[in-house]
Amino acid sequence: MSKFKVGIIGATGYVGAELVRGLSAHPDTRITVLTSRSFTGKKFSDIYPSFSGICDIGLTDGTPEETAGQCDLVITALPHGVSSATVPTLLESGVRVIDHSGDFRYRTLEPYTFSYGLEHPCPELLSEAVYGIPELYRSKLADAKLTANPGCYPTCSVLALAPFLRHGLISPDGIVIDALSAVSGAGRKADLPFAFCELDESFKPYSVINHRHTTEIEQECSFIAGREIHVTFTPHLIPVKRGMLATIYAHPASSDGSCSLASLREALENDYKDERFVRVMKGSALPTTSHVAGTNYIDISVDFDPRTGLVKIFSALDNLGKGAALQAIQAMNVMFGLPEDTGLANLMSGL
Amino acid sequence: MSKFKVGIIGATGYVGAELVRGLSAHPDTRITVLTSRSFTGKKFSDIYPSFSGICDIGLTDGTPEETAGQCDLVITALPHGVSSATVPTLLESGVRVIDHSGDFRYRTLEPYTFSYGLEHPCPELLSEAVYGIPELYRSKLADAKLTANPGCYPTCSVLALAPFLRHGLISPDGIVIDALSAVSGAGRKADLPFAFCELDESFKPYSVINHRHTTEIEQECSFIAGREIHVTFTPHLIPVKRGMLATIYAHPASSDGSCSLASLREALENDYKDERFVRVMKGSALPTTSHVAGTNYIDISVDFDPRTGLVKIFSALDNLGKGAALQAIQAMNVMFGLPEDTGLANLMSGL
Amino acid sequence: MSKFKVGIIGATGYVGAELVRGLSAHPDTRITVLTSRSFTGKKFSDIYPSFSGICDIGLTDGTPEETAGQCDLVITALPHGVSSATVPTLLESGVRVIDHSGDFRYRTLEPYTFSYGLEHPCPELLSEAVYGIPELYRSKLADAKLTANPGCYPTCSVLALAPFLRHGLISPDGIVIDALSAVSGAGRKADLPFAFCELDESFKPYSVINHRHTTEIEQECSFIAGREIHVTFTPHLIPVKRGMLATIYAHPASSDGSCSLASLREALENDYKDERFVRVMKGSALPTTSHVAGTNYIDISVDFDPRTGLVKIFSALDNLGKGAALQAIQAMNVMFGLPEDTGLANLMSGL
Amino acid sequence: MSKFKVGIIGATGYVGAELVRGLSAHPDTRITVLTSRSFTGKKFSDIYPSFSGICDIGLTDGTPEETAGQCDLVITALPHGVSSATVPTLLESGVRVIDHSGDFRYRTLEPYTFSYGLEHPCPELLSEAVYGIPELYRSKLADAKLTANPGCYPTCSVLALAPFLRHGLISPDGIVIDALSAVSGAGRKADLPFAFCELDESFKPYSVINHRHTTEIEQECSFIAGREIHVTFTPHLIPVKRGMLATIYAHPASSDGSCSLASLREALENDYKDERFVRVMKGSALPTTSHVAGTNYIDISVDFDPRTGLVKIFSALDNLGKGAALQAIQAMNVMFGLPEDTGLANLMSGL
Repeated sequence: MSKFKVGIIGATGYVGAELVRGLSAHPDTRITVLTSRSFTGKKFSDIYPSFSGICDIGLTDGTPEETAGQCDLVITALPHGVSSATVPTLLESGVRVIDHSGDFRYRTLEPYTFSYGLEHPCPELLSEAVYGIPELYRSKLADAKLTANPGCYPTCSVLALAPFLRHGLISPDGIVIDALSAVSGAGRKADLPFAFCELDESFKPYSVINHRHTTEIEQECSFIAGREIHVTFTPHLIPVKRGMLATIYAHPASSDGSCSLASLREALENDYKDERFVRVMKGSALPTTSHVAGTNYIDISVDFDPRTGLVKIFSALDNLGKGAALQAIQAMNVMFGLPEDTGLANLMSGL
Repeated sequence: MSKFKVGIIGATGYVGAELVRGLSAHPDTRITVLTSRSFTGKKFSDIYPSFSGICDIGLTDGTPEETAGQCDLVITALPHGVSSATVPTLLESGVRVIDHSGDFRYRTLEPYTFSYGLEHPCPELLSEAVYGIPELYRSKLADAKLTANPGCYPTCSVLALAPFLRHGLISPDGIVIDALSAVSGAGRKADLPFAFCELDESFKPYSVINHRHTTEIEQECSFIAGREIHVTFTPHLIPVKRGMLATIYAHPASSDGSCSLASLREALENDYKDERFVRVMKGSALPTTSHVAGTNYIDISVDFDPRTGLVKIFSALDNLGKGAALQAIQAMNVMFGLPEDTGLANLMSGL
Repeated sequence: MSKFKVGIIGATGYVGAELVRGLSAHPDTRITVLTSRSFTGKKFSDIYPSFSGICDIGLTDGTPEETAGQCDLVITALPHGVSSATVPTLLESGVRVIDHSGDFRYRTLEPYTFSYGLEHPCPELLSEAVYGIPELYRSKLADAKLTANPGCYPTCSVLALAPFLRHGLISPDGIVIDALSAVSGAGRKADLPFAFCELDESFKPYSVINHRHTTEIEQECSFIAGREIHVTFTPHLIPVKRGMLATIYAHPASSDGSCSLASLREALENDYKDERFVRVMKGSALPTTSHVAGTNYIDISVDFDPRTGLVKIFSALDNLGKGAALQAIQAMNVMFGLPEDTGLANLMSGL
Repeated sequence: MSKFKVGIIGATGYVGAELVRGLSAHPDTRITVLTSRSFTGKKFSDIYPSFSGICDIGLTDGTPEETAGQCDLVITALPHGVSSATVPTLLESGVRVIDHSGDFRYRTLEPYTFSYGLEHPCPELLSEAVYGIPELYRSKLADAKLTANPGCYPTCSVLALAPFLRHGLISPDGIVIDALSAVSGAGRKADLPFAFCELDESFKPYSVINHRHTTEIEQECSFIAGREIHVTFTPHLIPVKRGMLATIYAHPASSDGSCSLASLREALENDYKDERFVRVMKGSALPTTSHVAGTNYIDISVDFDPRTGLVKIFSALDNLGKGAALQAIQAMNVMFGLPEDTGLANLMSGL
């Protein structure tokens, strides 16, 4: 079998680099194009010397049409607003696309406008795009022309909540998501607030009201629950490179507040028992970000606090892995009809 | 004025070392005794070389009576269960005591037994002990024979919640406290789970059901609210040396869910406007742990999420500072009739 | 082709875990045995939850004979002194061995006794063991029954010095090796000096006179230079999980102190131009530990200080990668007649 | 006694903030002016919220004359080239100055031009400036109009070498200084190479040929030795916020290579026995950067490697403390005739 040809537009951010890491280890794909506006003419490994000998492809700045012409699939790792100006041309050129921005993640315009404050240039694509969580939209992804790769917080939150919402075990009202993210989630940029000495040995909340990912989480939770849901979401910044943790509080669905921890765990285990990249923690074990570093795994556990009657759900993933680039590769495998764990099965950062 | 004589029992843990740091910079006290079972005969600066030239006092292992005889005040930094076996003798010897364990923090036996699983050897002291948050119990502390220095999580949580509970602005029901702690909170010990390579670049929840500090938080919140409160509390471990953050979710008290952010901020500012060590954040600024590193400050802010109708309260302190040793010095100042910020006003770690 | 069967004795240390990471991604091997005295009966992924779904093999505590019977190759990750008591039995059982301790790295007894202070139980094996740096001993490794995997500092130092000693470009006298190591080099243990709060935000020299690896470095440098060499070696501990850097100072070999930087760089490039896992830095680029994290690469550069007439050589590797487990897999590939980069070509930690 | 009035020009860099930390804890000074071009009109604590309640002075952008008029001493924390354009005006206004740049550290123009590549606008001030290491130039500092605060690497290196050069115990030839620095040494700036994700978990050499501080080290070592000295100097970047370590290699001075470790240690101890901020390590203890964090101390030890006949000297300081701002305060104390440890005696970061 000849290898699938994959290009990345916007390859030199942290998500781009993680895509290159994943694709370099993938047996059935070949990277044909890496584009970068800032570093055109350099090699990818000039920007990321860790890739020297692994990926020395030259960075180009071709048009979307040119890129599309060299690829079976183009992955765009561009800012929102920029993606929506690029993706239509790619699709018109006949190539399939996985996009990493927020531009195609919404079913309707309203939450996009609310969260991103932009007018959408191609709203007609929203209904065409498939939300790229394979555990939720596997069958649609198989034929997707355009996959909208989810945000890291939504992936971490929605996969953790899905079984309980789906089976009506928790109330859709009053869900609180308290989330912690590594610094790489902010991208590769020269901003003082992200300088080493400003962040090292420090942690804090940020964007505590209306963080952009809130509406994305709500959309997917609402879809699963079959009714509109609003969630309280608070992100925090933790001084590590990779990792994300969600601690989620929810009320049991029963009218009398009763709740069976066994039922919660059974739902979690059953729903994910055939999922290659969801690991349900055993017993009282708890998700820990280092356990998922460099992987496409999400680790989830659930517990119940009898003192206050709240369900606690915990989930951890790598914000660049299952939270971004590696999930995109998982979706790509589905789109290409490959076994879903191709190239991902043993990927990990190690200690 | 001759200096007050202070001794520390259990001086070589991290809380002990922070006490020595604070007392070394204190103009009106003199450290007369430092005890250590493990390092008797060595100098304090042999164990903590950073103190060489600052505190070179020899470590002794005298009886409580001997220690009491050399001090106006003894600060005990011992594990729970050990404190309650030591403190009565100190008090009988006529010395005043500030204790860092959980042994004397409770007004009643029940929550102590629930959280610590121990039979209390001297329950009669519970009513005598004063809970050592000066912002709450300043007048009682002035005459206290025994001060029970609070836990770090309770200090961080209770001071953040107090104004809103006191003024009836939030409901006492359904409070969720999601808290993050630095590693030093676990103490100085040679356990594999606390080894550098096990924790570096990793974060996780722990003790997610019935962490010991839950009942302590509930006791103080209940007292302020004038009715019994149960809180949902979840601690997490963050790979830094010092720092603690609480993100707290509460419902507005109004029956219709309405809430005035201005009223919340006004209550916070008013209640703490004369407090030297509580800093209310201005505008949308948020507490950040590096801002309180090495200090006795607690930084607090409040916000309101109109999307879900929840109040969000944020507070940060240094778990060894306002969360432990420096708050003990603040309480000591009150007990000695000194200006409350003596020796603490300019204490900070710097960058 | 059926897969080669590999076992690891002492699988639950950090080197063991890195071996499992590497072997799990290796297409031509199968892990058949993982032994652990401390954790017998548990699964490997119980000890390292990051491996859940990747390596869930049960840990056993069989005899060396039993282990040998299930393997084509046994990799021992045991302390010195323990290895030398185990390896002879393995060899007698007919299995090939790669050993990670210092027990079989020496050609003669004297430096071993000097550095390890032990009487060697099987000195006759020293002449049989092959020192496991493929770049130096590739042909011998092909037939080796016993490979002594080198120390991390020796690998980092010897590969950096080899071209210049080999071509007589630097003097064998007066070489100074100043080396920095990540914390994982100390192994997985519950010692207070390796606790997170003791090491975080701190760095220091250690074992500054006669660190054990000194004699190992000297042996290999002497062999290359064709005369006895003593080196000055100073290790330092840096608060990161993975990574090692050597900064090496040497005098030019010329009697008049003259030195051609071009010649130095040419020797470095020529000697390593066909080596898959040695990356010679271009121009003035310098080795950086994050660039080799999780890889089997060593990055090397050379410069010349005209002010003082000293040659400066820099090399970086991952102390668990090329400095330990992944180099063992590289050696294993040679021993099995596989392409040397099998399973290693794309291995990296990512950001 | 009324307090000395001190102003800081360029107060919002990391050195400026450390000066404010030190001066805030100083009993005999009062900060009267803090200038900042970037943040004029804001309070210092707006830029560094950790100082809220400690230093809330407003940032101004007055002329040097205006600043001078409000101060007994002005401390300039400006880049080289900018200092030399500002300091003459300050001096002409009659105020004393401590400058942090490289502009006034040299006795002669040549090394300044070599290292900084600038034409010096006021070379006549070079002979007037006193190099601000109190341990070396205490008596001159007492009357200094202009103190040139040394670089961090020179302070760390020169104080470590001084006793051995002074007493002729080491050869002035062939000295190698291998130094490690925390990230704050690069200053407060929004550059990608200093972004958290670029530096965390990584270490590397940099500026390995002709780092600017080389000539400054050489000037002072030459002065002590009484002859011209060239040193080999290599800095490295370590992912921590504060701290610096020098590992120095030198040949014994004796013609036969003999060396007495006892003599080395005696020289070190004798020369510094009355120095308040130099701590000579006892026995085989080694300097460790966390031991000096936030302090004005430098820790030094010496050892001898009998294997190779080299002397090894180790020194640690805080690059912002004894390496910059706190040493400036020590010099200020000398200039004001105050006890040298005023305000510095107990300053430390703690754990």
